[in-house]
Amino acid sequence: MRIADRIQRLGTETAFAVAAGAAAHAASGATIYPFHLGDLNFKTPAHIVEAAKQAIRDGKTGYCPNGGILPLRETLAEDVNARRGTAYTADHVSIQPGGKPVIGKFLQVLMNPGDMVLCPSPGYPIYESLIEYFGGTVATYGFVPGTEGFRIDLEGLERAITPKTKLLIVNDFQNPTGAACSAGEHEKLAEIAQRHDLMVLLDEAYFEIHYEGRARSLVSQPDMAERCVLLYTFGKKFAMTGWRLGAAIGPREVIAYITKLNVNDESCTNHFVQYAGLAALTGDQTEPARMVQVLRKRRDMAVAMLNATPGIRCYSPPASFYLYPDVTNLMERKGFGGDYKAFAEDVLVKTGMSFCTRLHFGAPLPGETRRYIRLAYSGVDVEVIKTALGKLQVYAA
Amino acid sequence: MRIADRIQRLGTETAFAVAAGAAAHAASGATIYPFHLGDLNFKTPAHIVEAAKQAIRDGKTGYCPNGGILPLRETLAEDVNARRGTAYTADHVSIQPGGKPVIGKFLQVLMNPGDMVLCPSPGYPIYESLIEYFGGTVATYGFVPGTEGFRIDLEGLERAITPKTKLLIVNDFQNPTGAACSAGEHEKLAEIAQRHDLMVLLDEAYFEIHYEGRARSLVSQPDMAERCVLLYTFGKKFAMTGWRLGAAIGPREVIAYITKLNVNDESCTNHFVQYAGLAALTGDQTEPARMVQVLRKRRDMAVAMLNATPGIRCYSPPASFYLYPDVTNLMERKGFGGDYKAFAEDVLVKTGMSFCTRLHFGAPLPGETRRYIRLAYSGVDVEVIKTALGKLQVYAA
Repeated sequence: MRIADRIQRLGTETAFAVAAGAAAHAASGATIYPFHLGDLNFKTPAHIVEAAKQAIRDGKTGYCPNGGILPLRETLAEDVNARRGTAYTADHVSIQPGGKPVIGKFLQVLMNPGDMVLCPSPGYPIYESLIEYFGGTVATYGFVPGTEGFRIDLEGLERAITPKTKLLIVNDFQNPTGAACSAGEHEKLAEIAQRHDLMVLLDEAYFEIHYEGRARSLVSQPDMAERCVLLYTFGKKFAMTGWRLGAAIGPREVIAYITKLNVNDESCTNHFVQYAGLAALTGDQTEPARMVQVLRKRRDMAVAMLNATPGIRCYSPPASFYLYPDVTNLMERKGFGGDYKAFAEDVLVKTGMSFCTRLHFGAPLPGETRRYIRLAYSGVDVEVIKTALGKLQVYAA
Repeated sequence: MRIADRIQRLGTETAFAVAAGAAAHAASGATIYPFHLGDLNFKTPAHIVEAAKQAIRDGKTGYCPNGGILPLRETLAEDVNARRGTAYTADHVSIQPGGKPVIGKFLQVLMNPGDMVLCPSPGYPIYESLIEYFGGTVATYGFVPGTEGFRIDLEGLERAITPKTKLLIVNDFQNPTGAACSAGEHEKLAEIAQRHDLMVLLDEAYFEIHYEGRARSLVSQPDMAERCVLLYTFGKKFAMTGWRLGAAIGPREVIAYITKLNVNDESCTNHFVQYAGLAALTGDQTEPARMVQVLRKRRDMAVAMLNATPGIRCYSPPASFYLYPDVTNLMERKGFGGDYKAFAEDVLVKTGMSFCTRLHFGAPLPGETRRYIRLAYSGVDVEVIKTALGKLQVYAA
């Protein structure tokens, strides 16, 4: 059997290996505190579930249009417009089986082999995987620790641009740092995109998991709607990760090609799940708001306890359900130096905490000297956070 | 905006244009008899719906393993083994959001640019679209009218093989002809695949929509399990087309790569839908069996009426819910010659029947002189078939 060459270039999400390690440790009888995977321990709100059931009763169990049902595309366009000041219509929306498919489809429609794509590091590993898979080259930009949180290293980003740079990936409300761009960062990013004629994948999967004030979007900047393809997902806001429902939202021509990819790849997204998504957008918003409040309490508890832990410093990020604490001093003091794997194993065995590290989000950049881990608090209640981080404090003492 | 070169190579399913034409005609007040799209007008059986609801109640609304939940992979392997005499285990199964994703993933894992792939003509247009999209070249093989139905043109198939030919696509229980391979054809196909060292995409989407005796599979031939990747779908057998649930089943190494594509493309298939699929496989089989009986009655009525229509001849195919009548004489007599588009429009306007033609399944092969249309009877009840084909008889008289 000859395996095709291209598939050797395909990367993966190594976070799944952390889950396997945690499961193996749990099998030995240990209690595990799962800070490694970004899944939510909330139930999908009842009215969303009811809408899915009603759609099944209504016979929405056959094929539907490749780009999604019209009412969902219209309603999602209006919802996004209300929050971002855009002027999208149904023609700008292609419904997808999750937010993730938008990454590969964006690259397939807009990236030629040899094109260079700017993407964040630390960042979601699937960006790099698919850029290289489809024959592009990756240029990374980093983040710098600011007074209140991480900021995009805009100078580094602009230095990385070459004549081959065609695309920019921005993950605002970022995984793993939880950082949200300031208005000034948005202005500067828009200016860079326009000056260098870059199309932008704007991954805003966590746009609505936002704790301070109103979330702002890069797409709201002048003329940026023509340059951005928005990655939208129902998964995080509505506790629907396993339902697999998302959308690509952007310029009509790009969206038409993305829908043509749907024709070839999966025909359409589950029909009745789209009615559940419609109910999510139009229905009662109490439960999504309550979830954000619960997540905020978890964040506050975790940040306070991390900052009371010797050798750890952590920002209180404005968005997402991730923390990205600096553990350099703890790793040094415990004698691990830069050995993330040994450190994570030691913490797992001694405290039960499982988590990802910097290395799960790409190779450290030149000159990056601080060391970080990522804690996801989407799946751990505040009492569990107290217990687990209490054990971490003992470990670090 | 620069659209990537590759996307220009991407094809589509032109059957959707037929649907648009039918909808436009319906909007003018005409009654439409929809023989164009292969969707089922059956409800998903109640116990399958109930299993989905129960899975939601059980909290199966978060992420699940990329390749699918273990019980579904195990049970599907057993089900396929029982019907095909194979020895698959869960490791040979990767759950997909539909059968269609298997086509592109098979090609991505096994086809290098420049490789030649043999595929059927007439055949499902997505094969050619994705072969060319991923940089392969298409070689087509045809069908010959036999005494009881279409047979693969095995001599033509073998003549088309060159040193560049690496893959073979077999759509048994075929769309659009409804043909099922004989035991002899399976033996010969297996022999050809082995002699020329070809890997096979075995699209058996309609394996269970089979009317005469027991369905046989190419994968049951000696040593063929190592060469075949099976396209399996829950959509047709269980009236679940819009649920988007299918699987790739094949050699472990290929399946592992396909699951790695899942990690990059869509993370996983809808979690609770997989429990519905499990219930479909393990639950009461009365309803799927009843559906096949209903489809058989439709087939028998349609075939009898077509053969009583001047200028039309039609086999009674053993499988699928498609008919592929020869309308050469009718088109000639009506003065359309080879102009399928004008013929289909004329029939639509004068009878209300909408349908696909030969051209929706690829360009006619050299030496192909007869003309065909495709009628899908998946979505039209027997009384509607009577009315519509009665009108066609009047039209043709």
